[in-house]
Amino acid sequence: MVTFTLLYWEQMITASEPDRLCVVLVATRNPLNIGAAARAMSNFGFSCLRLVNPYDVAFREARSAVGASEILTQAQEYKSVADAVADCTLVVGTTAARDRELQHPLKLLEPASLDIREHLASGRVALLFGSEKRGLSNQDFSHCHWLMRIPTHEENVSMNLGQAVAVCLYELARRASAASTATDEQPKPAASVEVERITAVLLEALRASGYLQPRSGAPTEEKLRRLVRRLNLSAEDAEVWLGMLRQIVWKLNQQTEP
Amino acid sequence: MVTFTLLYWEQMITASEPDRLCVVLVATRNPLNIGAAARAMSNFGFSCLRLVNPYDVAFREARSAVGASEILTQAQEYKSVADAVADCTLVVGTTAARDRELQHPLKLLEPASLDIREHLASGRVALLFGSEKRGLSNQDFSHCHWLMRIPTHEENVSMNLGQAVAVCLYELARRASAASTATDEQPKPAASVEVERITAVLLEALRASGYLQPRSGAPTEEKLRRLVRRLNLSAEDAEVWLGMLRQIVWKLNQQTEP
Repeated sequence: MVTFTLLYWEQMITASEPDRLCVVLVATRNPLNIGAAARAMSNFGFSCLRLVNPYDVAFREARSAVGASEILTQAQEYKSVADAVADCTLVVGTTAARDRELQHPLKLLEPASLDIREHLASGRVALLFGSEKRGLSNQDFSHCHWLMRIPTHEENVSMNLGQAVAVCLYELARRASAASTATDEQPKPAASVEVERITAVLLEALRASGYLQPRSGAPTEEKLRRLVRRLNLSAEDAEVWLGMLRQIVWKLNQQTEP
Repeated sequence: MVTFTLLYWEQMITASEPDRLCVVLVATRNPLNIGAAARAMSNFGFSCLRLVNPYDVAFREARSAVGASEILTQAQEYKSVADAVADCTLVVGTTAARDRELQHPLKLLEPASLDIREHLASGRVALLFGSEKRGLSNQDFSHCHWLMRIPTHEENVSMNLGQAVAVCLYELARRASAASTATDEQPKPAASVEVERITAVLLEALRASGYLQPRSGAPTEEKLRRLVRRLNLSAEDAEVWLGMLRQIVWKLNQQTEP
């Protein structure tokens, strides 16, 4: 017990926040789902996978699959939920249930993730997923502090296990990286002088092609200017359009002359 | 043409916002992934599934699977990306790429979902997912207005297809309430079929004017398609540009002939 506690503290000190989240699959039947859960964990930067009573064949198949990840090969197997969550200070069960009589507080994924994230700053959290057919049992729930559900559509609340894991971990990872998210790089917009040049060349092309009268007046020109402005061209694209239009005008003029 | 336009408008008027989102799977190989995509759609309340060149066996297997949903049985099959997105006014490609040289603006899922949601208030949006092995090609990308990626961990950026669909749709469903307040009047955007027409006529003008070689190939065409998409034309402006370009082409061709 002392050994366990020491080991536990050592892990806690060295473990980074994402490593403190344990995905616990209870009685999973399909090896593909175990593999899918591991893949989603790797996609979102989590590493601790635990299995409670998986069907032996399923676990073996998932582990031996080509390209089985380190997450999968290092996954730990437990005989009971109690064992699997023993070192966790917060235990959260997932459920699709709405009307089922729940004895636990039920939170939606989004606010729940915020709570889990806060908890990860200081402790280890277990996130439980039940079997494909039945989900978590009341017995499993009894180990949980509270439950959470993904806000699905009323007509089909039950998600595929691998997809449910992916969505939960996405939301948890999103919470962590919200602050560090890079802003999208916007292209440099074209200067007005460039937009004006494009308008002028376009006007010339439209006159040379007969689309506009040779002496079409200011209102036409303004309309055209607004049309070009609405394109919201980047500086780079403006240059390309200007080059294309100039070539077209050159060709139109060249052929008009005798 | 009139039939198409009427049908299109009829669909637009009757379609609710979630029905205006089309999940487009391009060259999907695994029937389980097609099924998983359909299941996630049903979980998050979306219904329009389109498949471009799926492996025949995959599509047949997915459709005939026990409990195949209405979404799956009503999924439409298309020969090309262009056909699958023809009635969509915003086309978004998904990618795991970060360092690959992308010719398109790349947004993260969260801000991207907000943009998509806003767009769904007035138009139809296509969300493209590539094949399991290769993702979307540059040719596929050329039909997109912009790309989006799920913020995955650097060590494993590539997600399982069904899980990627689930995460994207979760985020879009989550955004539903957020965007329903933003109802400022935006001009109706041009449909992809119109943008495609402009690209074709522009290509003709550039060839006739000598800007491009008469037999300039697919890469040039793709570059041009991206250039035109970046204009984000409204339906009204698209019509004006098409009229101008057609007149220019007519003039260029008339004068080339003896």
